[in-house]
Amino acid sequence: MARAGRRPGQTETREAILAAARERFGTHGYDGTTIRAIAADADVNPALVHHFFGSKDKVFAAAMHLPVDPAVMVGTILDGPRSGVGERLVRLFLMLWETPQPRAAFFGLLRSVSTNEQAATMMRQFIQRAVLAKVATELGVPPLRVTGMAAQLFGLALVRYVVKVEPLAGASHDEVVAMIAPVLQGYIGG
Amino acid sequence: MARAGRRPGQTETREAILAAARERFGTHGYDGTTIRAIAADADVNPALVHHFFGSKDKVFAAAMHLPVDPAVMVGTILDGPRSGVGERLVRLFLMLWETPQPRAAFFGLLRSVSTNEQAATMMRQFIQRAVLAKVATELGVPPLRVTGMAAQLFGLALVRYVVKVEPLAGASHDEVVAMIAPVLQGYIGG
Repeated sequence: MARAGRRPGQTETREAILAAARERFGTHGYDGTTIRAIAADADVNPALVHHFFGSKDKVFAAAMHLPVDPAVMVGTILDGPRSGVGERLVRLFLMLWETPQPRAAFFGLLRSVSTNEQAATMMRQFIQRAVLAKVATELGVPPLRVTGMAAQLFGLALVRYVVKVEPLAGASHDEVVAMIAPVLQGYIGG
Repeated sequence: MARAGRRPGQTETREAILAAARERFGTHGYDGTTIRAIAADADVNPALVHHFFGSKDKVFAAAMHLPVDPAVMVGTILDGPRSGVGERLVRLFLMLWETPQPRAAFFGLLRSVSTNEQAATMMRQFIQRAVLAKVATELGVPPLRVTGMAAQLFGLALVRYVVKVEPLAGASHDEVVAMIAPVLQGYIGG
């Protein structure tokens, strides 16, 4: 959608949908929320929610200020040789974690899942349905191993950016890739 | 020290030392705090702090309610064949994370480092000086690789116990060990 094509009121409608979505996902979880219910809460036609966002995943990503569209992440993983999956994943996340806006969104999420059971439930269901299941299917890797990769990646964020333990906090991207990429590759090759 | 041997007032003295230690570590960091300064703040002789706790590491562990004495952790890593380090580490942490008191302490720490810069600084200095440096020296592994192991272990806690992503959240200890132990072993063998 080109910005120039927006009618007055579209921004307000979009914000009303996102506010309704945050409320619904918060009270009913990711699994218990439908686009139809969000539309009813926002008092708009469900077709408009589809028009603005395209899918429940994308409404969730926008409502939660997710730092990365899951479809982009899955695309990054699959776009290129399988032997480069580990390196592409590490470089994607290092880039996200070091770019101000996605960085703030990611660490805001980390704080909320650590302190708020409702936020943890939403993220759990979303990660399971929208990310891990897709990655597992596309790569042909057992879901348990995909959660092991997720643990390595999120632990990297925790140690490098939150607790900032040296020498990991100050290591260059190439040093981090040289260490972590083969570990992720082991998860998908094992 | 046998409980029966305690004179009246020892518990109060011990608590006064721990309160002074929490305050000092909080304002001066781990590196900037000495047993002498803690003793002065608590108005006791430094020898008494040594008598109660033995070392600055141990005062810190007690003051922060750390779920594991770093000396015990290093001992676990070294007590047995090198080929079993990964499995011993995973089993030690699964046990800690599933035992009520250390579990609560661990997840309390995770929340505080995610939300409080001062807590993150204390933990960073402590982990660097009292844990990582020792493990790196004892195993003869570069410190960067030890931080990679820490990232895998803490990420396991985050995904399995905090966000509770399936199938990792419901996997048995043996399944977790089968997946994570070889990864940790790779860090020390590589």
